[in-house]
Parts: sequence; C-alpha cells; structure tokens
Amino acid sequence: LVSWYFPNNPLHLFSLNCVLRISSALCLSAGLSAAKLLKANGLSPVVLEARDRVGGRTFTVRNKETKWVDLGGAYIGPTQNRILRLAKEYGIQTYKVNEQESLVHYVNGKSYPFRGSFPPMWNPIVLLDFNNLWRTMDEMGREIPREAPWRAPHAEEWDNMTMMELFEKICWTSTVRRFAKLFVNVNVTSEPHEVSALWFLWYVKQCGGTMRIFSTTNGGQERKFAGGSSQISECMARELGERVKLQSPVCRIDQSGDTVAVETLDKLTYTYVIVATPPALNLKMHFNPELPPLRNQLINRVPMGSVIKCMVYYKENFWRKKGYCGSMVIEEEGAPIGLTLDDTKPDGTVPCIMGFILARKCRKLLGLTKEERIVKIKTISNRIHVSTCVCQPVHYEEKNWCEEEYSGGCYTAYFPPGILTQFGKVLREPVGKLYFAGTETATEWSGYMEGAVQAGERAAREVLCAMNKIHQSQIWQTEPESMEVPARPFATSFWERNLPSVGGLFKLVGISTVLSVATAAGVVAYKKGLLSRS
Amino acid sequence: LVSWYFPNNPLHLFSLNCVLRISSALCLSAGLSAAKLLKANGLSPVVLEARDRVGGRTFTVRNKETKWVDLGGAYIGPTQNRILRLAKEYGIQTYKVNEQESLVHYVNGKSYPFRGSFPPMWNPIVLLDFNNLWRTMDEMGREIPREAPWRAPHAEEWDNMTMMELFEKICWTSTVRRFAKLFVNVNVTSEPHEVSALWFLWYVKQCGGTMRIFSTTNGGQERKFAGGSSQISECMARELGERVKLQSPVCRIDQSGDTVAVETLDKLTYTYVIVATPPALNLKMHFNPELPPLRNQLINRVPMGSVIKCMVYYKENFWRKKGYCGSMVIEEEGAPIGLTLDDTKPDGTVPCIMGFILARKCRKLLGLTKEERIVKIKTISNRIHVSTCVCQPVHYEEKNWCEEEYSGGCYTAYFPPGILTQFGKVLREPVGKLYFAGTETATEWSGYMEGAVQAGERAAREVLCAMNKIHQSQIWQTEPESMEVPARPFATSFWERNLPSVGGLFKLVGISTVLSVATAAGVVAYKKGLLSRS
Repeated sequence: LVSWYFPNNPLHLFSLNCVLRISSALCLSAGLSAAKLLKANGLSPVVLEARDRVGGRTFTVRNKETKWVDLGGAYIGPTQNRILRLAKEYGIQTYKVNEQESLVHYVNGKSYPFRGSFPPMWNPIVLLDFNNLWRTMDEMGREIPREAPWRAPHAEEWDNMTMMELFEKICWTSTVRRFAKLFVNVNVTSEPHEVSALWFLWYVKQCGGTMRIFSTTNGGQERKFAGGSSQISECMARELGERVKLQSPVCRIDQSGDTVAVETLDKLTYTYVIVATPPALNLKMHFNPELPPLRNQLINRVPMGSVIKCMVYYKENFWRKKGYCGSMVIEEEGAPIGLTLDDTKPDGTVPCIMGFILARKCRKLLGLTKEERIVKIKTISNRIHVSTCVCQPVHYEEKNWCEEEYSGGCYTAYFPPGILTQFGKVLREPVGKLYFAGTETATEWSGYMEGAVQAGERAAREVLCAMNKIHQSQIWQTEPESMEVPARPFATSFWERNLPSVGGLFKLVGISTVLSVATAAGVVAYKKGLLSRS
Repeated sequence: LVSWYFPNNPLHLFSLNCVLRISSALCLSAGLSAAKLLKANGLSPVVLEARDRVGGRTFTVRNKETKWVDLGGAYIGPTQNRILRLAKEYGIQTYKVNEQESLVHYVNGKSYPFRGSFPPMWNPIVLLDFNNLWRTMDEMGREIPREAPWRAPHAEEWDNMTMMELFEKICWTSTVRRFAKLFVNVNVTSEPHEVSALWFLWYVKQCGGTMRIFSTTNGGQERKFAGGSSQISECMARELGERVKLQSPVCRIDQSGDTVAVETLDKLTYTYVIVATPPALNLKMHFNPELPPLRNQLINRVPMGSVIKCMVYYKENFWRKKGYCGSMVIEEEGAPIGLTLDDTKPDGTVPCIMGFILARKCRKLLGLTKEERIVKIKTISNRIHVSTCVCQPVHYEEKNWCEEEYSGGCYTAYFPPGILTQFGKVLREPVGKLYFAGTETATEWSGYMEGAVQAGERAAREVLCAMNKIHQSQIWQTEPESMEVPARPFATSFWERNLPSVGGLFKLVGISTVLSVATAAGVVAYKKGLLSRS
C-alpha cells in the first residue's frame, strides 16, 4: 500500500529560535538535539522556543477519547537511524503500523483491494507507463548529489521545470499522471505544478527513493512511537531543564557588537546562535546587520506545504474484520482525504483511521467548520466501504497546520521552479555567528524528524568547530544502522528493470511493424515474381 | 526602444508598518498616502516606519557628483494619474526621459540602432512570431479581470503554467523566445520559469498592455520627477509631521483585546491598523491571534524580484552626439545589464546612463565587489559602443535591493505557479481591524508608485467605511486623467492585427500547398486526358 509519512522536526518544535548559552561569556543557539549534543560536550546551551510547548511540527495530544494522538509528525522507518537512536536512549518503544490485511485503492468511484507498496495496474499499457515512471524518477534521483542538488549534471534544466511538466514528458497515460499527482500531494503536501522537478526528485532521493519514501512496510511509514512522537522532544527538554525557555519568540538578532544580542521579552547576549526554524521563519526575526542578499531572498522563496491531519475514531476496528488493514489510496477530486493509515493503538484499543487533506484540497476545505469537514470525510468513507458495515465515528481529532504562525504549514518547505539552483547553496551557510539547523537543511530524510536530528547535530558540531573543540572533518557524521529497525533493500525484478516505457514500446512496435510489413511485402513480391528482374 | 520602469511604492517606503491613531480612543494604520487621506478626513493617523528614512522602494540620494539620483523606483508615465496628482499638488515637476535619438538593440554581439518601442525584426518568420507574441499576450490579458485575476475563464490552466511554458507554446523561433525572456526579466525582475503565466499576464494587463508597460514615450518610462521620486514621500511625511515615526519596526500586532496593541520599541494601542508592506513582509510581525490560514500561507508564497540598479556617470553625453538616445536593449548572457535608459538631468548636466542587473544575473553578480561590477559594466559598454568614443566613467552609483531586509527585493512581489488562484483572493482581505495596502494589492499599475497610491487610498477608505464615515460603494474610486500627462492610445496596424502566427502561416502554406499541388495535378491530369473516363 501507499503508506504514509509525516515529516516532523523535533528541533523546530522547540525552536522558533533556539539559542544556546554556554558557561561564562560564551553563548550559542540551536534546536533541542543541537542543545543536547552541546551539553554533552560540556557547554551550557539555552533554547528559546516561540510556542508554549516543545515539539514544533510534532504535536502529541493526550485525552480520554484517544489516550494519545499525534496531530503532527508521527511516522518513522528503517534508515532513519538518528531518530531511532534518540528513541532508544529514552526508552521510547516503536510499533508497526498495521498492514497485515489488504490495502484499498479507490479510483473512478470503485474500491480495489491490493497488497504491496503501490496499487497494481491491470491495463498492460498503463502497467508499462507506471513501471517506467518510478524507474525514471529513481534514475534521475541517482544523478542528484544529496548534499548539493544544485550541482547535478542537469540541475538547471530540471530546476526550471515543474513536476507537472516532467510528468507530461514522462507519462503517456492519464491514469499514471493522476497517480503521480497524488504521489506529489502525499509526499510534500503541494501540487506538481507548484514544485521544482529538481527539488522533488532530490527530496525523494534523499529519503532513499520512490519505494522507501512511499512504503509502510520497510519504508518511511513503517512505525510510530508508542505514546506519541512529541515524547522525544519532551525527553530532550526535560534533560535540558531550565535551559529551555517557552513562549520566547525571538524578534531581533543583533550581531553588530562582539557578542550576539538576541531580543525576546528581555534582551540577552550569546556567543553563537543556531537558528533552528524552517527557512521561511527566519523572516519572523529582524537582523542587524541584515542577512546577506541571497539568504534575505531565499527565505522568501521556500513556502511550507498545506495539510490538515484528521483522525476518525470508531467503536470497533470494523475494517480489519472485513480483511482491510485501513490503508487507502484515494483518487477522487471530490474526496477530501488522499491517503489513510490505521491509527489504532498497538494493543488494538482506540480504533482509528488517520487521513490527510492535502495541498489544493486543504486550501479548499480549510474554510469549512470542523463539523462540515467530518460530514465530507464520512461521505467518502461510506462510499469506499460500501460493502462493509461502517460504524459511526465516536470521536474526531484534526489539526490544520496552515494556521500555525510558527510553522507556516507542514510537513516541510518546498522549492518552486528555479530557486534551488539560484539560492540553494546558502541554505545552511553560516552568517557571522549564526548557524542554521531545521529539517530543511538536512541531506538525509530532510523534511522528517530524522532530518531534524541530522541538522541539529551538524549545526552543533559547526559551533564546536568554530570554538576549536573539534576538527572541520568531524562536522558531518554518518550514523550506524539501528539494530531494532534495520533496512532491507528494495529488490527490483528483471521485468521492472527491463520492460520498455510506452514510448519505447511504440518505437519497438513501429520498427517491428515496419520490419514485418517489409518482410510480408517482400514475401508477397517474391511469390508474385515482382522481385525478379525480368 | 524598450523603455524602462521601476515599480515604486511611496507607501512601502514609509511603512514597514504604518499605524494611524485618530483622536481620542480611535487608532488606525496605513501607508503615507493612506495617512494623508485619513488626515484630510479629520482623523489623526500615526505612521510607523521600520527604516530610518521615508521612501521605501524609492530612494533618492543627493550628493555632489550626481546632484540627485533615484536608486530605486523612478519612472512614471501616462495613465498613472494618482501619483501624477500628488506630484502636481506638491509642485514636483516631471520631465521626459530622453528618447530623441536612436535606441540600440544589442544581440548576437552586434549593435542595431532603431526607433520605436520594440526593436524591429527583419526575418519575416521572426517578424510574424514577434507580432503574434505581443498580440497573444494582450488578448489573453483581456480575459483576465483586473481586480480578480483568479476568476479569469482559464485562470487555473494559466496559473499552473510558468511563463516559460507559455512561451514554449506561443513562440516558434528562438529569437523571439530570447526576447520574451528579457521582457519578463525587465518587467518583473524574475525569470520566465519562476513566475505563473496567469500572474504575469495579469501584471502586464493591469499596466495597460505590452506597449504601455514597455514603452518610454507614451508608456511607463516616459518621465521622471525633477529632483527625485522620494520627494513625494518626503512631502507627505512633512505634511504629516510628528505623526511619522522613523526606525519603528513593528514586531507584534495583538488584536486579542478591544483595541489593537502594536509593539515597536514601546507598545501602543490603536483602533485600526493598515499594514502597508509587500505581503511577504507581514512575516516580520508576530500576530495574536494568528493570521487566518490562507493569509498565513500566502505571505510565504510571494517572493520579491531580484535587481541591482546601476548608474554610470560620464564627463560628457557622448552617446547623443553619435545619434543614440542612451536606451539599450541588451541580449547577451555575459552582459550584466539587460536594459539601459538615459539618466542625464533634464537641463543636460550630469551625463549618466542607468542600467539594471536583473533576476539570474543579479543573483550571479551580487557576490562581486562594486569595483568588479563596474569593470563588467564597462566591458559590455565598450563592446556596444565600439564605433563611438566611449569616455571613461567619472562616477558610479548602485543599489542592490536584494540586501534590503525591509523590502526583500525589488521591484515587486511575483507569484510562482499555482498561487494566484489558490491564495490570491485573500491578498487585500481585512483581518479583524487590520487592513492591507502596498502596491501588490493594487488593481492598476500594481508594482509601481501609482499602484501604491491606489492601494493606500483604498485601504484608508476601507477604514473610513468601517467607521461609518463613508459608504461601501465609495471605497474603490477611479481617478480623473492627468491634464499634464495624458495617455494616447496605442494604435495597432491592420497588419499587426491580421498577420498570421508562424503556426498559422504553416497551416496556410500547408493548405495552399495541398490546393496548388491538387490543382496542378488536376491541370496535368486534364491535359493528359487522365480525367476523362474512357
């Protein structure tokens, strides 16, 4: 089944602005995991958080009806070794998202049960087209350097194109084009015509490819944290204690003197500052001196995606009884939800289906009341499960991330056409004593909780390097693979690798037609004696 | 010649945040022209400006070498009746930008002198293509409502496409495509692949079409203000006196109580607030309650263009002596400047050529030092004037608008694909007691000084309406035509209207070829007696 992930950022959580102050006169800033790493190195960081809670784009709510529910980032999977390391350290258990029974692909008004990561395609032309789409995207991804996508051999050409343009070039059938649109909606909460092809291909690549990013089993949505994802941030915050200051939005950063003056409710000065927000939220702060021109313009060019996360609770887990695991891929313009996953607790209690309202649909439906949205969700849910008895929902939770001033949207920032190649290189380039973290600056699972940890720790090490405590070569570090959640390779079959694209097939058919017609004509001509020069 | 304009915004100038306070307990906010209108209506507005000067995206500098120079918005022309009215009121004279001699089109390494708004094309196929481009853009523009482009019949289709995609569909020749790219660069300081086709077509339309926006004579670049464009803002600020507070960036706007609390260095409360900044600069403020979700995401989706304005001063006006007016359209990737205009003072003193470094070239060259940029400009200047004696520059002025924190870039905001139709409708929708001005919210000459005045006065009238001082029908007002700077229509010739496009020609040729071949065959057949049924 198309599984689902929700990029999170425990750093961001904490950190509209995370400022770390160390010992005597030294001062630093970073997200929570940056602060944790710096504290482990004997420094005394301070974390300034704009919100009244830690967690940022992860947000675990506890109540009677749900026990606990992740209204923001929730899913984790193999190859996300940094976030898995933190979970292990704090003793937070993971559990597998249910995918034991059939998934459902709802398209053209009908439900089709299936197994696996992607819905099967029956029409042979569509099948070739579908196979070619994933193969092409992964091949293009292989050309893109994870740490500097702007240096890809075709960087400019791909960056000046939207994903819609690329799909128009790659895909021959409307079935595949429609599914490709959903693939973009689901992965980056934006529309194919809004995003740069170079950026989207990079994004999928740095998560491990189309299979890894989209799969539940063995992919980005394999697991959740028992008790909710905000626990990671909460544990780090507890460890940091007094050093985390809530409700402290930074509105001014002044580097004109020897130290960095950071203005919140009260002015404080630090030696180093790590700004651990999505790039666009740098705009919430006033800088002296002004940011360099490329960064000043970059932060205006990387909008956040649009998503409402919805959880519908039922008295019983009716779908599993009917042989469905709860995962649904929904292709219908009128349906609010594009993708669902089972969100029942690991012990089988609190039956729940989680779904996302994505991109264009999110912008259309955010004007409705919560009640009106429930009605729309129930309607499509009844249509999909027409053969099964649909229980009435007993509870509903939702979170519209577009309304959060200190996120700007979710899951992550996207790059419109032409921006990555022109501005990308300053994404994590320090400015004076300012360093930049946030999942958007990561090179592996950027957009996810994993990317946030990578970014926070890298920024912390940049500060340590600036203090001459570590060598420059130590800033970027790889992470050993998690023992508990190992990654298995995605094997591709001989046919997946070698089937032609539709265009290739037509060429092949064209050539063989020409050859057969020519041969047939030759035979006829020979038989009729036309070839003999008489 | 391709003339030039530089969108300005006297409102913005003043107004990272313009807050107006009236009489007793009532409080309002707006840009300078909003404040002026409100004061004229007996209220006591307060203007809060982030910078240490008024003028915003206009910026007149006075010094010995230049007398005065507009480093930002400068040009005005017919149909810009509001800004012309303000200039007249303050007794600020306008003068015509010199276009008496030949303009120069530099392409493929050669200079071609010409007269008129656009360079002539000699190849007949290119000519058809060129003619068809402008005609098509203007025809598409006619379908787009000035005040609600998102309601155009093809709004979604055009919005989901970049201008590059549209040019690929319209243009048959690379010559025209290359010129079309320059046309986008020059008008909105961004690249064709970065902007939505719907938005760019709207932008050109609301300035009066391709001829009006691009012409010097009878177009947007016809005139300048003697003494500099900032004078308008300075006069308004003088009139408002103590009500204008400089160096007062607003960092928080709190509408949770009965009045609106605005936080700068000190907290003040007002009854109404007009936010007169480019939409993206709303992000500099923290809002309570948060902005509505669509506005919260819109302000992250409309980046500012990229431009460096350069002025090169000479001892004498050598170009006019050689028969050139100083206007140059430069099509060469290696040339920093894309377009120049004569910037000599109206009395013929201080000979000067003004040029723009635009979009991709701006981002590439802003990393150089000022000296390195001068060298590059001199090199291309020498190559263009190879036959004339180029004097050595005696002075140089430049302004990189990408580095301005309180503009974010210049001239104006652009809309990437897909944004105008999804978020456009909240562009000037009030939020509680907040009203929105800024040239981006205008419906005529948006992006220019003229649009700023329209927007400021409209927002001021929205406040007056909310106070029950005027009727809702009075909010939007047309402006009588300036007597001093009347507009003349752009006449199109019969041939411009009726020449086929290249595609049309090919079809025509195709059909007539078929017809002639058929006819010829018929004649031959008839003569040979093949048609007679014997």
